[in-house]
Amino acid sequence: MTKIPYKIYLTEDEMPTQWYNIRSDMKQKPAPLLNPGTGKPLTLEEMEHVFCTELSKQELDNDTKWIEIPEPVMNFYRMFRPSPLVHAEFLEKALDTPAKIFYKFEGNNTSGSHKLNSAIAQAYYAKKQGLKGVTTETGAGQWGTALSMACQYFGLDCKVYMVKCSYEQKPFRREVIRTYGGSIVPSPSNTTSVGRKILAEHPDTTGSLGCAISEAVEIATTTEGYRYVLGSVLNQVLLHQTIIGLETQAALKKYGIKPDVLIACTGGGSNLGGFASPFMGEILRGEANYKIIGAEPASCPSFTRGTYAYDFCDTGMICPLAKMYTIGSQFIPSSNHAGGLRFHGMSPILSELYDQKLFEARAYEQTNVFEAAEIFAKAEGILPAPESSHAIRAAIDEALECKKTGEEKVIVFNLSGTGYFDLYAYKQFNDGTMTDVIPSDEVIREALAKLPKL
Amino acid sequence: MTKIPYKIYLTEDEMPTQWYNIRSDMKQKPAPLLNPGTGKPLTLEEMEHVFCTELSKQELDNDTKWIEIPEPVMNFYRMFRPSPLVHAEFLEKALDTPAKIFYKFEGNNTSGSHKLNSAIAQAYYAKKQGLKGVTTETGAGQWGTALSMACQYFGLDCKVYMVKCSYEQKPFRREVIRTYGGSIVPSPSNTTSVGRKILAEHPDTTGSLGCAISEAVEIATTTEGYRYVLGSVLNQVLLHQTIIGLETQAALKKYGIKPDVLIACTGGGSNLGGFASPFMGEILRGEANYKIIGAEPASCPSFTRGTYAYDFCDTGMICPLAKMYTIGSQFIPSSNHAGGLRFHGMSPILSELYDQKLFEARAYEQTNVFEAAEIFAKAEGILPAPESSHAIRAAIDEALECKKTGEEKVIVFNLSGTGYFDLYAYKQFNDGTMTDVIPSDEVIREALAKLPKL
Repeated sequence: MTKIPYKIYLTEDEMPTQWYNIRSDMKQKPAPLLNPGTGKPLTLEEMEHVFCTELSKQELDNDTKWIEIPEPVMNFYRMFRPSPLVHAEFLEKALDTPAKIFYKFEGNNTSGSHKLNSAIAQAYYAKKQGLKGVTTETGAGQWGTALSMACQYFGLDCKVYMVKCSYEQKPFRREVIRTYGGSIVPSPSNTTSVGRKILAEHPDTTGSLGCAISEAVEIATTTEGYRYVLGSVLNQVLLHQTIIGLETQAALKKYGIKPDVLIACTGGGSNLGGFASPFMGEILRGEANYKIIGAEPASCPSFTRGTYAYDFCDTGMICPLAKMYTIGSQFIPSSNHAGGLRFHGMSPILSELYDQKLFEARAYEQTNVFEAAEIFAKAEGILPAPESSHAIRAAIDEALECKKTGEEKVIVFNLSGTGYFDLYAYKQFNDGTMTDVIPSDEVIREALAKLPKL
Repeated sequence: MTKIPYKIYLTEDEMPTQWYNIRSDMKQKPAPLLNPGTGKPLTLEEMEHVFCTELSKQELDNDTKWIEIPEPVMNFYRMFRPSPLVHAEFLEKALDTPAKIFYKFEGNNTSGSHKLNSAIAQAYYAKKQGLKGVTTETGAGQWGTALSMACQYFGLDCKVYMVKCSYEQKPFRREVIRTYGGSIVPSPSNTTSVGRKILAEHPDTTGSLGCAISEAVEIATTTEGYRYVLGSVLNQVLLHQTIIGLETQAALKKYGIKPDVLIACTGGGSNLGGFASPFMGEILRGEANYKIIGAEPASCPSFTRGTYAYDFCDTGMICPLAKMYTIGSQFIPSSNHAGGLRFHGMSPILSELYDQKLFEARAYEQTNVFEAAEIFAKAEGILPAPESSHAIRAAIDEALECKKTGEEKVIVFNLSGTGYFDLYAYKQFNDGTMTDVIPSDEVIREALAKLPKL
């Protein structure tokens, strides 16, 4: 290796100008979305009713390997990209490990996470289509913030349904969204029929992503000039997020660094898919081999305790069916869990690749995750998001394993965001009042029993 | 000019390795600190009682032009430095101005501001001296956060007195400080005799920087193995902060950019001094000429409505006397003011240079400042700190003036920090409930009447 700086920045000229579509390299393609009424694959015409047309096309495109990033999106990317690939020297020293640790840092923008990569692309296509605005849901708040920034940039209206417990725990997230002109409703709400139904059945619910999705979709499909946009799970989102993995590959290549282990946290899959799918593509094409780890929360363990089946993407069961690793659309994750990653399902692309054993998944309890967050914050001087800290936990565990074995593995993980709006959770951890929430087998069995019968 | 990227990063090799001491280039040196008991210049021996020895030497050193940055400090700097110099293309477009606007961005670290530059230096010298810990005050919270990060890095204890209104408005700031192992007390408090005295006289006070300083100094000077450290005002702090201006000069030089106007906000002067003094040095040496603007809050207008005189640095009148622009140590700024910059005095170095008319100062009302913050956030995708937004206001005003005159001036300002912990203030602004607080002439006259008689 040549002398590696602490932070590797690509120049603007070295930035990737295309997104990578991993479906083009998959022999067994991800299963298509189904129309819940007919049980048949969703057509472009059906999809256009919910999503922007160009995004629907991207959703259905299993063949085009490289998709040009539109120039206005590239231009916006320059505000916060390329993001640095950091050599975690301070963390290596703190762990006293022979492993080499690198992290791609996606948190250096006001949305605080990687979500802006897809938000700006989706807003662009919505604008190009002449829409008035878009609706969406947000859990921890990063996606809602990112989308409000992106919509503001293109002069689009932005309506955000925010999972109620996050809405209450993160009042300042709301203010960022408001500053960028977005409007926010805590979900479930009385503004939609699906919200009213959920409230009638579960008056004390603190909400879930699946429920907020139902509400946002209802508004989008019943309001003239609006479409629904989603920050994870979908093929199109993973596509846009590949900018992370492609930049990481370019930065590694620039310094001749060959990774052994690649790690990202995963809720719906936008982060793991965006970071890792360019590397998974190398595996699929037989060009390289890596150990790839998806780190998920033990409180919402879609990969590690779910099943690979068709399920609704939302609690209200009005959205298309996706074949994915799921613990059931009727599973409502505990509000006690601090971060995001609270989605019952998982990206169909990643689900298919997981089923093909292209990568492994691990579930972590939140106190264990926050211990890792604190080690990282103290060593590297960055306060990580609880979501990203799942990946930190996995990376630290791998590095400590290297310490035992003496191996000098190269571990690269994605630090998807910062924790500046998660200090309520940090307070619980600092106070020693944080607890772990792991659903019982019975709870998961019950939720899985409610999977749709096809 | 050659093609300028949106963000100019220096390489690690291009980073300055020395701090610049502007006093070496000043014919008329800043007035010395005085012992309030004797009225005579503070000696090294007296100073060492309060400050670390090496820092006391730096405080008194009017001659050494370049001071080597110690290797452990340089190493820590690599965590968050070099910081980018950003070409504010998006802001230029939003303002439709012929001016070229650049900003140095100091907010990309977990303390959220430039304060870490001096915090790590001061912690290093404290550690080198074998101290157990340090005490300090913090207003808006950036300095306290930065110091807790720095102390954690060197294994020092860190006690922070936080201005009470900030302590209450920014509960999450506290959690960051706690995560880095610092302890926090809202000031004024019952833990010091000066705090008890202030509370007895002003039971409803929401505190001030001057008051928190008194408390922190009392603890430092009465606890074995502790010294007091300060995040602004002092010569040593301006010295460490010159890393900002030196990097800015190097980045401008790299692309052949010649600034016309240089702008920074100013409370005690660490930011304006750090950013601008390398440029002021060029003026002093007759090598260049720039228009330099210090932007201060109308609610605490030390430069624009204060007087140049010896005054106490603290409300409790136990600290040394400094000759500075001041509105009086007994002036307590309104808690209604949203950001930091609430210090009654100003850096002696900057005060002397202001008296020599090397730069100008402007005072801004906070609603006007938040309007600028919102324009900037929407255009450049970064939510700025209220403090930094004073500089943004001045930069936007200059750029709009260029729009009138058609001049293509090059405006460079320092974006000293981010506003992620200032969303209470953004909420007030978004709600339309923010008001401006401008002290009456009488209030300032009364405060100035209490200046010490020498």
